[in-house]
Amino acid sequence: MTSFASFAALRLACLDLPSGDDAAAAAAAARNAVLTKPPGSLGRLEEVAIWLARWQGSNPPRLDRVDVLVFAANHGIVAQGVSAFPADVTMQMVANFAAGGAAINQLAALAGARLQVVPLDLDRPTADFTHEPAMSEDAFLRAVSTGYDSVPADADLICLGEMGIGNTTAAAAIAAALFGGGGKRWAGRGTGVDDDGLARKRRAVDSALTRHAGLLADPLRVAAALGGRELAAVLGAALAARRRRIPVLIDGFCCTAAVAPLAYLQSDGLAHALAAHVSAEAAHRALLDELGLNPLVDLGMRLGEASGAAVAALVLRAAVACHAGMATFAEAGVAGKL
Amino acid sequence: MTSFASFAALRLACLDLPSGDDAAAAAAAARNAVLTKPPGSLGRLEEVAIWLARWQGSNPPRLDRVDVLVFAANHGIVAQGVSAFPADVTMQMVANFAAGGAAINQLAALAGARLQVVPLDLDRPTADFTHEPAMSEDAFLRAVSTGYDSVPADADLICLGEMGIGNTTAAAAIAAALFGGGGKRWAGRGTGVDDDGLARKRRAVDSALTRHAGLLADPLRVAAALGGRELAAVLGAALAARRRRIPVLIDGFCCTAAVAPLAYLQSDGLAHALAAHVSAEAAHRALLDELGLNPLVDLGMRLGEASGAAVAALVLRAAVACHAGMATFAEAGVAGKL
Repeated sequence: MTSFASFAALRLACLDLPSGDDAAAAAAAARNAVLTKPPGSLGRLEEVAIWLARWQGSNPPRLDRVDVLVFAANHGIVAQGVSAFPADVTMQMVANFAAGGAAINQLAALAGARLQVVPLDLDRPTADFTHEPAMSEDAFLRAVSTGYDSVPADADLICLGEMGIGNTTAAAAIAAALFGGGGKRWAGRGTGVDDDGLARKRRAVDSALTRHAGLLADPLRVAAALGGRELAAVLGAALAARRRRIPVLIDGFCCTAAVAPLAYLQSDGLAHALAAHVSAEAAHRALLDELGLNPLVDLGMRLGEASGAAVAALVLRAAVACHAGMATFAEAGVAGKL
Repeated sequence: MTSFASFAALRLACLDLPSGDDAAAAAAAARNAVLTKPPGSLGRLEEVAIWLARWQGSNPPRLDRVDVLVFAANHGIVAQGVSAFPADVTMQMVANFAAGGAAINQLAALAGARLQVVPLDLDRPTADFTHEPAMSEDAFLRAVSTGYDSVPADADLICLGEMGIGNTTAAAAIAAALFGGGGKRWAGRGTGVDDDGLARKRRAVDSALTRHAGLLADPLRVAAALGGRELAAVLGAALAARRRRIPVLIDGFCCTAAVAPLAYLQSDGLAHALAAHVSAEAAHRALLDELGLNPLVDLGMRLGEASGAAVAALVLRAAVACHAGMATFAEAGVAGKL
């Protein structure tokens, strides 16, 4: 069991990150060049095959074990009327995950992935961060550690997702703290709030920025004060994956905000992660741009629960299938370019 | 066996198209609204589930039988130096398809689709359309009929693709004839021609427009004079699918140009078809815009052979899996919106 004892210890781990394997990436690129297709004609499928090889440290890349991790938690900020759904839905959806009835159940099965749902103290919502820090240092570090320990050491790919009524407001607050612009820039309609709800979300973000102004320069303290347990766990899982050199698909707006501290602390902190998709949550594109992430697909999804990551995992399977299964020009007796 | 006896007979078939099933579409939309997710939060996955239901005429939609059809042919226009690859590659790639070594073999298997490759008179390239019509009326109608007859009556989805060295020039000529703008607008680098090759492609298109100026108002004569056998077969297959109400995924630039006459003849002629992706071939986006088609994915692919359609079929499988497999709010005991 991993247990980060302090912000300082966690920060140290976030700064001590392995690089990818250049030799494996070069081997994948060399194979791409001799497969029976015009060079580069599989576009991003070729790029992601190289990226997978780089982080798996071997070529050809493999997707024998794909894990979808969905972290769930509750948020005190719902007291501010920021969600279109009642907080009970977090627990109800965790039950729905267990019963196999949610979107991610269908999508994980289609993607050939194992689904692991990790509820974090659902009966103890975080504090309302317009009044006080969402989490104590200890609560935050425990959630990060839970996420860290949820990553199977033998996974070939991790898809990260979340469920938590109210968490687009927490994600917006993190994004605003790290990248500026306030509630107007970062708060969106989430699961579908009306105009009044959107105004309340914006005010909640702005209020939080004022109340916690003293810690906005420290991304880990931001994640503790403005985030949530499931977002902290997503951060921990992304960190664990990097330290084990396991590639990661980041789901939507909440997940992207959750992992942003890694890139904020070290410029290549998310090099092992791909943005699975750009969601319909308005601020997601802006957040991806801030992080220099280019999403794989844009399907107007805004569900969370790793649903976008699972769809993107299908694209990764396409990349690996082509990379591993195609014949070379020499094998097939196909002529190269004139 | 279908055999269109004349341009007039084919035109009549292109104008006699069934509509989709509004009741099935409404049933799919109603189910979307009660599944355990915020309304609309699966974005295009919800839209395509409705679209599939509409064209399959039943809800829930199904993808039990998915067929990938790849038509292959050779082009006299290669004499103008318009391709980066020699014409022999068409035949060699057909052998590669048969041996299972091409990208589409891997992608069709991943998508759970049957792959049918249909070579059309590979030893008889079309004529160089800068000098004379690419095909006679009879040759064109035979190719259309071959495509028409290749569509299995019990397919739930058809993915259309092509292979033919030189055919991006033919596709560019068709697009230029139908939508204006000349070679500069429509010719691109295809499999990877250099600047000189690109200039030759543009000149070939412009030269064809001048030579065949008298028939540019008739999209079927355009397809015969400037197209190719595989593009004619793609047109025939798209027509057959529509007349049997089978939904279609259109692959890249060449396929989109091939089916464009259907939309040109009747404004909703492609309502049963989705653009699978937007390819890296520069003019594809412009052609999709002319046709009002919104591609499902953008992965920078430019391979043809239905590769983009097969990747998009994975997205359709995701849509169907969610639509059919998810629990409703009532079934799962999840609360709805506040």
